[in-house]
Amino acid sequence: MLIVKTIAEARRIVWRWKAEERTIGLCPTMGYLHEGHLSLMQASVRDNDITVASIFVNPMQFAPNEDLTKYPRDFERDCKMLEKEGVDMVFAPEPSEMYRDDFCTFVDMTVVSEGLCGRSRPVMFRGVCTVLTKLINIIYPNRMYMGKKDAQQLAVVRRMVRDLNFNLKVVGCPTVRESDGLAKSSRNTYLSPEQRQASRILSRTLRHAQETIAAAGIGQGGGEAGADGAGSAGAGLSSADMIARMEEELRTEPMADIDYVEIVDGLSMQPVQTLHEGDLVAMAVRIGDTRLIDNFIVGDPLIEIGE
Amino acid sequence: MLIVKTIAEARRIVWRWKAEERTIGLCPTMGYLHEGHLSLMQASVRDNDITVASIFVNPMQFAPNEDLTKYPRDFERDCKMLEKEGVDMVFAPEPSEMYRDDFCTFVDMTVVSEGLCGRSRPVMFRGVCTVLTKLINIIYPNRMYMGKKDAQQLAVVRRMVRDLNFNLKVVGCPTVRESDGLAKSSRNTYLSPEQRQASRILSRTLRHAQETIAAAGIGQGGGEAGADGAGSAGAGLSSADMIARMEEELRTEPMADIDYVEIVDGLSMQPVQTLHEGDLVAMAVRIGDTRLIDNFIVGDPLIEIGE
Repeated sequence: MLIVKTIAEARRIVWRWKAEERTIGLCPTMGYLHEGHLSLMQASVRDNDITVASIFVNPMQFAPNEDLTKYPRDFERDCKMLEKEGVDMVFAPEPSEMYRDDFCTFVDMTVVSEGLCGRSRPVMFRGVCTVLTKLINIIYPNRMYMGKKDAQQLAVVRRMVRDLNFNLKVVGCPTVRESDGLAKSSRNTYLSPEQRQASRILSRTLRHAQETIAAAGIGQGGGEAGADGAGSAGAGLSSADMIARMEEELRTEPMADIDYVEIVDGLSMQPVQTLHEGDLVAMAVRIGDTRLIDNFIVGDPLIEIGE
Repeated sequence: MLIVKTIAEARRIVWRWKAEERTIGLCPTMGYLHEGHLSLMQASVRDNDITVASIFVNPMQFAPNEDLTKYPRDFERDCKMLEKEGVDMVFAPEPSEMYRDDFCTFVDMTVVSEGLCGRSRPVMFRGVCTVLTKLINIIYPNRMYMGKKDAQQLAVVRRMVRDLNFNLKVVGCPTVRESDGLAKSSRNTYLSPEQRQASRILSRTLRHAQETIAAAGIGQGGGEAGADGAGSAGAGLSSADMIARMEEELRTEPMADIDYVEIVDGLSMQPVQTLHEGDLVAMAVRIGDTRLIDNFIVGDPLIEIGE
C-alpha cells in the first residue's frame, strides 16, 4: 500500500493508473477509522480496480470553537486497517500541503447546506466542499464513497457534484452501528461510560419513529394514504407532530441536549410538512461536550437497537 | 466544426478525444467575438490538438443592474469566425442547461477578487469562478486561454486553479487594441462616435504612465533604485503619486467618469506602496453608461496609441 503525503506524488501515481484505464474509488476520511469507514473501503475495493483512501483532518471545516486540535488521530493504526482492506494508496497530506498561506478560494453552497448541521456548524460544508473539490481534482476518482450517517454531507456533496459537473458517481454507504444501535463515529471515543450509555437515546428514538412511520403505512413502497391535501383524513403523518414526539423521547434522557430534530426532503434538505418515502429524519444531540448525529431515510430498514 | 448545446454531448465528444490522447485547449468567451478573442483561438490552435471555444453569456456574473439582457450577441457571425480560425468545437449551452432551477453551489474567492473590479462588481468573480469550474469539468482542457485585458479575472482564475488543484495551465494572451490604442471589447459596441473618441483617454493615460515608470528606470530588468525603505532617496515611484497623476489625466476628458485607478501586486491583486516590475496598473472608467477597463503590467512593452 502506497502512503503519499504530497499532491505532486499523488498526481504522478494517479495518472499512471489513469493511463492504464484503471477505475479509481476514493474514500475521503478524517482518519481514526472505525467499521463505518472500512465499509466504504470494502465497497470501493469491490467496485473499482484501485481504491484510494484519504486521511485529512480538514481545518477548514472546523469552527474556532470546535474540536480540531483534540480530534482523535492514530495514523499507524489507520494504515494497518486500510492495508488489510486492500486499499492501494493512502493520501495523507499535511494541512500546509493542502492550504498555502494565501489560499483564498472556496466552494460554497446555499439551500442544501443551510438547515440541520449547517445551522449550528455554518463553516462545515464550505470546508467539506472545498476539500473534496481539491481531492477530486488530485485523485480523479470514478466513484467516491461516503457514509449515509453524515446524511446532509452526502446530500451536499451530491448537489455539488451535479451543480459543478464533476464527472464521478457519489456512492452512499449504510450507517454502521454498535450492537446497541449507536452509530459508529470517531467522536464516540470522547464519551465517558455514562455518556456512552446515555447516547443510546439517539438510535432508540429514531427506531421508535421508524415504527410509528411504518405503522402509518408510509415508506413501504406506495402504502401511503395518497391524499396530501391539508385536513383530509389519513393525509399522512405531520412532520411537526413527529418531531415533537421525538424531542419528547430525547428529553427523557437527562444527559441529552437537543441541537436539532428535523424532517426534510432527501435531496434538497428542505423541511417537509408531511412524511413521505425518501424523506430524511435527522437529529443532532449533545451528550456532554460531544455532538452526535444520527438519521434514517423513510423507507430504510428498521435500525437494530439490541435487546 | 462541431456546434454543441448540451453538456452530455460535449462530454461524449471530449471523452473520445481524451481516449485518443489529444490535447485540448479551451477558450471561454461570452461571444460577440473580436480580434482579442480570436488571438486566444490562434494561441490554442497553435498549442493543442483540439480547440474548444465556449460561448456563454453567464447570467451569474452579471448583477441585476448590469447589462445581461443587452449584452451584444451574434451567434452565427461568431461561428463563422471560429470556423475560420480552425476551432474544432463550439460549446454554446443555454442558461437552463448550465443552471438548473435549484442550482445552489458557488466557487468563491476572497483577497484576489476583492479590489479593482471586484469592488464595483461584487458578484462577477463568483460567477466567473463557478462557470469556469463547470466548463473545466465538462471539457477537461489541458490549457485554458484568457485575455490579459481582464487582468484581475486572469489573476482570479490562476489562483482558483492553483487553490483547487485543477490540472491545467492557464495561458494569458496579450490585449489586442484598436489602432488608436483602445482595448478591444465587446462592450465597445455600446459607444457613440463621441464616446468612442473620448474612450481614447484610457490607453493614453496608461501609455503616459508607462513612460513615467520607464523614465524612473522601473520594470526594465533590474534597473530599479533598489532601496525600498520609506523616505530613502530614489526609493522608486510611489503608487499614490502615480495614481493621482493618472486620475488627473483621466479628468481632462469630461466624458470620463473614473471607477478606479489602482496599482496592485500582479499575483495577489493587493495594493502596493511603490512600483515594481510585475505590478498591475489598472483602471475602470465609465464613458456614458459603458464601463471600460484597461491595464498594463509594469515591464510590458509600451502601449501603441497611434498618431
